[in-house]
Amino acid sequence: MDLTRATDAPWLLRRVRPMGGAAIDVLVQAGRIAAVGPELTPPAGTPEEEGGGALLLPGLVESHTHLDKTLWGLPWYRNAVGHRLIDRIDNERGFRAASGHDAATQSMRLARAFLAAGTTRLRSHVDIDTQAGLRHLAGVQRTAAALAPWLQIQTVAFPQSGLLGRPGTAELLGAALAEGADVLGGLDPCAIDGDPVRSLDVLFGLAERHGKPLDIHLHEPGAMGAFSLGLILERTAALGMQGRVAVSHAFCLGDLPAAEVQALLARLAALDVSLVTSAPSSRSVPPLLAARAAGVTVAGGNDGIRDTWTPYGSPDMLARAMQIGLRYNLRRDDEIEQTLDCVTAVGARACGFGAHGLAPGCRADLVLVEAETVAEAVVARPTRRLVVAGGRIVARDGHLLPGLPGEEAPPSMPAPVS
Amino acid sequence: MDLTRATDAPWLLRRVRPMGGAAIDVLVQAGRIAAVGPELTPPAGTPEEEGGGALLLPGLVESHTHLDKTLWGLPWYRNAVGHRLIDRIDNERGFRAASGHDAATQSMRLARAFLAAGTTRLRSHVDIDTQAGLRHLAGVQRTAAALAPWLQIQTVAFPQSGLLGRPGTAELLGAALAEGADVLGGLDPCAIDGDPVRSLDVLFGLAERHGKPLDIHLHEPGAMGAFSLGLILERTAALGMQGRVAVSHAFCLGDLPAAEVQALLARLAALDVSLVTSAPSSRSVPPLLAARAAGVTVAGGNDGIRDTWTPYGSPDMLARAMQIGLRYNLRRDDEIEQTLDCVTAVGARACGFGAHGLAPGCRADLVLVEAETVAEAVVARPTRRLVVAGGRIVARDGHLLPGLPGEEAPPSMPAPVS
Repeated sequence: MDLTRATDAPWLLRRVRPMGGAAIDVLVQAGRIAAVGPELTPPAGTPEEEGGGALLLPGLVESHTHLDKTLWGLPWYRNAVGHRLIDRIDNERGFRAASGHDAATQSMRLARAFLAAGTTRLRSHVDIDTQAGLRHLAGVQRTAAALAPWLQIQTVAFPQSGLLGRPGTAELLGAALAEGADVLGGLDPCAIDGDPVRSLDVLFGLAERHGKPLDIHLHEPGAMGAFSLGLILERTAALGMQGRVAVSHAFCLGDLPAAEVQALLARLAALDVSLVTSAPSSRSVPPLLAARAAGVTVAGGNDGIRDTWTPYGSPDMLARAMQIGLRYNLRRDDEIEQTLDCVTAVGARACGFGAHGLAPGCRADLVLVEAETVAEAVVARPTRRLVVAGGRIVARDGHLLPGLPGEEAPPSMPAPVS
Repeated sequence: MDLTRATDAPWLLRRVRPMGGAAIDVLVQAGRIAAVGPELTPPAGTPEEEGGGALLLPGLVESHTHLDKTLWGLPWYRNAVGHRLIDRIDNERGFRAASGHDAATQSMRLARAFLAAGTTRLRSHVDIDTQAGLRHLAGVQRTAAALAPWLQIQTVAFPQSGLLGRPGTAELLGAALAEGADVLGGLDPCAIDGDPVRSLDVLFGLAERHGKPLDIHLHEPGAMGAFSLGLILERTAALGMQGRVAVSHAFCLGDLPAAEVQALLARLAALDVSLVTSAPSSRSVPPLLAARAAGVTVAGGNDGIRDTWTPYGSPDMLARAMQIGLRYNLRRDDEIEQTLDCVTAVGARACGFGAHGLAPGCRADLVLVEAETVAEAVVARPTRRLVVAGGRIVARDGHLLPGLPGEEAPPSMPAPVS
């Protein structure tokens, strides 16, 4: 039986240790987890896959990346870009115009690498600007549609070059949402747009008109960032958008006085506004454990992966979990388990992906690795022995099975992530 | 011809691109690089190894690790240790006493993994304390002796539990140096020893008496760290120990006023005192580019690898170079090349390993990877295609060749580093 084929027939994953616990079996049917328990006895003839006591994780979740920008699988890009944010924004727009960068091909390459490494749900910001229009969105949407049965991709209509500075951008964002972008993105209402009230009014107005959630890049530091965050929280409350707003980066929460941070965390929790962090080594970051203790949803994501902005990043979300552990100096096993939470259950919650996890009824997104505990899986990042996505086996030993969309004739991709 | 055997006969490495430059050949003889250049024509019958245009790096250098502590290759250690420095010190001493931890076996496991990933020179701190005496040193020295033709290991006699607090430690350090420890180590003269002047007087006195260089762990933050650093610099000058003192970590240089940092960097450069950093994501760090610009030697190292202190770290020094890049937000190719420098030429300089590099006369320590540029090698960390150490081929495709010391009958080690 070819388990990559769409089928509603049940199959059994034998002897796996969910989150490092005692071995159980998992019955999969119609793309969902139908049952879990020790030594299940499905009807005779039910196909079985032997798990061999490997560690079972739920599908990994990438809450913040930029599939449209990546140069994954292309020859090395020699980065000689200036250090300011605006240098990077301008360089990228110019590079894309000159190179004929194709967001469909590139997003497919990176999305396949994510899937091979166990990511089954992913939120990608996609640049919308007056130069490229909706071209990048169309490219990522093509990848999302092709991979939908296995890797669920959300698209965020993201004004990378600013919302107010280039007339016509707001209209393009509206068009992107009308074309099916799942989320509306925003960017630094003070530092980039220069007019935070008008910027956020336009942004929230668009979100309300189109009935879409928001995910706002907030790089602004210290008091400026706190001011913008306050404006975001005000509008979230005023428009009743609780549970539908995420703030990415939020560096300011890492460099404000402790009392002010606690007050902001309480408001974030009360309004159910999520935070998304890449846990960068070189920037201040929101306090992870304090935010979780305050009830704030804190998800993890790469940000860009191997693009004109940065050479770093990896489609392996266990590597991102490790980065979170390193950034927050989490060394105990119980602490490192929280980093996995950021790239599984909590990431799904921040992005609004439902039915995620290892319980009956959840989407059957399963990742097997050779590890004793969750902490070992995060630190050692073993090759994914098996990846199940939407109920079907899609990868073995770090390699996607043949027949999935986006295969390329010559093996032009980098080595599989391990 | 078996290139792993000791021989003075020449052999040729064909078509490799040093540091990403144009392809050349490398002639190796008697453990040294005898000649480099395009299309060398050695005597007929000289054995050849085809490089296939791969990127050639010099042997990698680990300037700060703790081979004696590692649990590499053992079942996962569940870390439930408290968060204070003293918790970790006490926990480790207790764990070792209870577990029968064997520094010889463990240092060999990790050293072999380093060699497989292209590290050919390494400085290891080794705990000396009144409970274990010189036992850990003897274990690491056994590994160092066995691997000496390939991986050069320096041992640092390191008072992990403090120099003054436990009577008899200074005598043990003296005994360790008499037994052949290469370097004398120190630790936080204020925060751990509580008496900085006496602590450093004892330490420098021991170094002077035994004619050994110094490498001092300085975790102390801010003004306290600057005070201790000042005392170290005074004694370096007074005893004429220029070029023979390293300060590891030096977190204080990351959290002092800029003018004070510049003044300290100038004194470090003038006295040729090296800095060694692991570039931790969660701590303040010395300013890398400013220190290099001031003429300070800044080397890179892991610190501990998978031990009771930390689950993190890797015997792949390209991963440490990447960590340095992430910590200092180095994204341009020319910046990332400086991270490789920290784990090759500059590391060798900090530790006093001579004749390191790709020029004729250097020790023939060569690493081949499939990468276009140095920056790509750091970011992608490809499997080491070939490792040459002391003139002999020791590893192919990430695996050590058979016949080297420390082979274990059952394959109990983790997967090779790639």
